[in-house]
Amino acid sequence: MTPIISIVGKSDSGKTTLIEKLVPEFVRRGYRVATVKHDVHGFEVDREGKDSWRHKQAGAHTVVISSPTKLAVIRDVDHDADLTELRDKYIQDVDLILSEGFRKNSQPKIEVFRKEMHQDLLCQKEDNLLAIAADQLIDVGVPCFDLNDARGLVNLIEEKFLQGKKSPPVRLWVNGKEIPLSPFVQKSIGSTVRGMVSTLKGGASPQRVELKVLPDGNSHGTR
Amino acid sequence: MTPIISIVGKSDSGKTTLIEKLVPEFVRRGYRVATVKHDVHGFEVDREGKDSWRHKQAGAHTVVISSPTKLAVIRDVDHDADLTELRDKYIQDVDLILSEGFRKNSQPKIEVFRKEMHQDLLCQKEDNLLAIAADQLIDVGVPCFDLNDARGLVNLIEEKFLQGKKSPPVRLWVNGKEIPLSPFVQKSIGSTVRGMVSTLKGGASPQRVELKVLPDGNSHGTR
Repeated sequence: MTPIISIVGKSDSGKTTLIEKLVPEFVRRGYRVATVKHDVHGFEVDREGKDSWRHKQAGAHTVVISSPTKLAVIRDVDHDADLTELRDKYIQDVDLILSEGFRKNSQPKIEVFRKEMHQDLLCQKEDNLLAIAADQLIDVGVPCFDLNDARGLVNLIEEKFLQGKKSPPVRLWVNGKEIPLSPFVQKSIGSTVRGMVSTLKGGASPQRVELKVLPDGNSHGTR
Repeated sequence: MTPIISIVGKSDSGKTTLIEKLVPEFVRRGYRVATVKHDVHGFEVDREGKDSWRHKQAGAHTVVISSPTKLAVIRDVDHDADLTELRDKYIQDVDLILSEGFRKNSQPKIEVFRKEMHQDLLCQKEDNLLAIAADQLIDVGVPCFDLNDARGLVNLIEEKFLQGKKSPPVRLWVNGKEIPLSPFVQKSIGSTVRGMVSTLKGGASPQRVELKVLPDGNSHGTR
């Protein structure tokens, strides 16, 4: 099951800012991250006047906006889902979920704390508090990191929750459907493709390779 | 499987406008509708500067915005999904899917046509063309409706694709999870609740009833 870590803290403590530092560090290490934000005030579907906005205004229960690189699903719900329900029903294909807020959920938490903003912490160790990210050293029996120490926090999360979770280095889709590959097959395909590419002009020491084999008649690279 | 109908037509023929007329007519008849729109130009997650927008900018693969009434999932994808893939992976709890565009998919289609905008139709009967919605009578061997005749078009779709698909009149969730009810149990619960409500002040001739039973300590109606 995909692990969930909640970034909690009082208002204006810097939760979004910390998430903005953590996500790129996870991505740099090869993980895929989902974030979850609770929005009590409601939010708009796309921009006013756009087609998808007009669909929702007309009363559509669900609106899907599809593109070759990004997909959005906006739907009506009848209750406030907790994090495990969101994970189980709506989040696929990621290694880790970071929530902003959701303090009352039982998931492991990192509290963001800035002395200039607030006097006391929101959580105690008993609230499944994993660590604190603060502008000064705070000792409540859990590790305390500097607000800017994304590497330290990611090290901790990686060590505790992500052993062996990294997205596989070789992934294969056939007719749009992903084919699961064993580590052995991944290694074999990976070295074949890297070897093939490295003989090409501009292909020396390939890191990330993307290869599309298209049906006949699409030889000019269109989908 | 949830039926899919594609509303197709050349650009500016009035596809979104027709969807804006069809959706409320389906809703009025008790159906839940999802719409699907293809967006080649890309789209923004929420508004620039908002927290969820910042999460996506930071590199999150998936961003979920959750609220008590509405939920949004925005995620990266690596290919253009067709309608059946979108249905199977991302659309739940609806009776019908209307797509705007997706002409090349094999689903039944309704073409929107305005003579002032274009000379010829986009589709032929052989393209699984179900009907035409036009500003004049066009005879290509499929029914032709007036652009404003949402009721006529919905009658046709209902008759062909929605027999017995209407959302059940009584639905029950326990701890956030829907419990499937047989028609008999639905009828029994429905008449009990309606009978109970009708004895209350303001509860005469109840149509739609929503009832929440909350845990102890929530007696003031907060969740």
